[in-house]
Amino acid sequence: MKIGIIGSGNVGGTLGTRWAKNGHGVMFATREAGSAKMTKLLASAPGAGSGTAEAVARVSDVLLLAIPWSAAEEALKSAGDLSGKIIIDAINPVLPDLSGLAIGTTSSAGEMVASWTPGAKVVKALNTVGYYVMADPTFAQGPVTMLYCGDDADAKKAVAPLIAELGFDPLDAGPLTQARLLEPFAMLWISLAMKQGYGRDIAFRFIRRAG
Amino acid sequence: MKIGIIGSGNVGGTLGTRWAKNGHGVMFATREAGSAKMTKLLASAPGAGSGTAEAVARVSDVLLLAIPWSAAEEALKSAGDLSGKIIIDAINPVLPDLSGLAIGTTSSAGEMVASWTPGAKVVKALNTVGYYVMADPTFAQGPVTMLYCGDDADAKKAVAPLIAELGFDPLDAGPLTQARLLEPFAMLWISLAMKQGYGRDIAFRFIRRAG
Repeated sequence: MKIGIIGSGNVGGTLGTRWAKNGHGVMFATREAGSAKMTKLLASAPGAGSGTAEAVARVSDVLLLAIPWSAAEEALKSAGDLSGKIIIDAINPVLPDLSGLAIGTTSSAGEMVASWTPGAKVVKALNTVGYYVMADPTFAQGPVTMLYCGDDADAKKAVAPLIAELGFDPLDAGPLTQARLLEPFAMLWISLAMKQGYGRDIAFRFIRRAG
Repeated sequence: MKIGIIGSGNVGGTLGTRWAKNGHGVMFATREAGSAKMTKLLASAPGAGSGTAEAVARVSDVLLLAIPWSAAEEALKSAGDLSGKIIIDAINPVLPDLSGLAIGTTSSAGEMVASWTPGAKVVKALNTVGYYVMADPTFAQGPVTMLYCGDDADAKKAVAPLIAELGFDPLDAGPLTQARLLEPFAMLWISLAMKQGYGRDIAFRFIRRAG
């Protein structure tokens, strides 16, 4: 399968190189043909070539989008007619300071709850799995991870053991604004369990390379 | 630690009962003292009591919120002054048909990309971990799960093997609107890796009870 890479940074470079090593014909889109960076990338990706976004799109069955969000619309328009192409969109519309998403998330129930309870110490937690999992969070693969977030360190220190004693692996996800991420994470669980056919005995486990 | 449960449905009932069995003093808020449901719940939760939301809040160190989003504001106001209390907010502002969140999510880069590429088959994927993990998604705990979503079944069938051959465990998360959940999921990874001190060799693994 011929794969075009729109955006040859860390993500596009890593994936394009790996797919090339797996035997796919890989083309990297570039506006700097012959640059040191592109030369190095092509040397590491067996059989890969490069070209303008339009040329790459024309010869590819699949396009990986791995460009910054701010460059996405222009890059797609410069790639010409993409009708019928398969596009793998790996873009995240992240704000430059990594404080959140530039589009798509606006608020959270956690923050609203805090606004309705002045002086209270709100910890968002125990929202990311269903009650089936809450009844017993011990899976063969290990305990289910329970993310929590909040702005009061002492409140988090009090809540984490309450989560742990239920059998979860508690994980501090940061300040209360992270509820903007934990609530969609919960919605993901709900949709997988209830709409996508995976059932309610599912969960996510946070894993680290070290094991 | 005294724990008050605001919302005695599946979530509040499960967690309140488990905390009661662990030896905490648990109080369930109810407007239906003496109802069959509350009597059954109290019978299963050792030492637990019930009362109005205000009475429960007054005697509790920690309050679990497990009420529907639509009832949250009123319930919190009826609970009186909560200043200084620790509130565990387990509410998800889910739409009645489970199609998404009522607040906080509005759109996604994936849907925007599709709007800019008429006729193309957009699959949101490979956005939820960093390139360090993409270079090698094999962890001691098993392969990293890679969620993907899109509206074209054939495109998803083409993309899933491209993900699998990289060493990921591909998981179909449904239609392209699910990008509204996969992008915050990515933002969660980014924030944990870059802001919360967990580093870039982290990931989430989808687990099932059976496996």
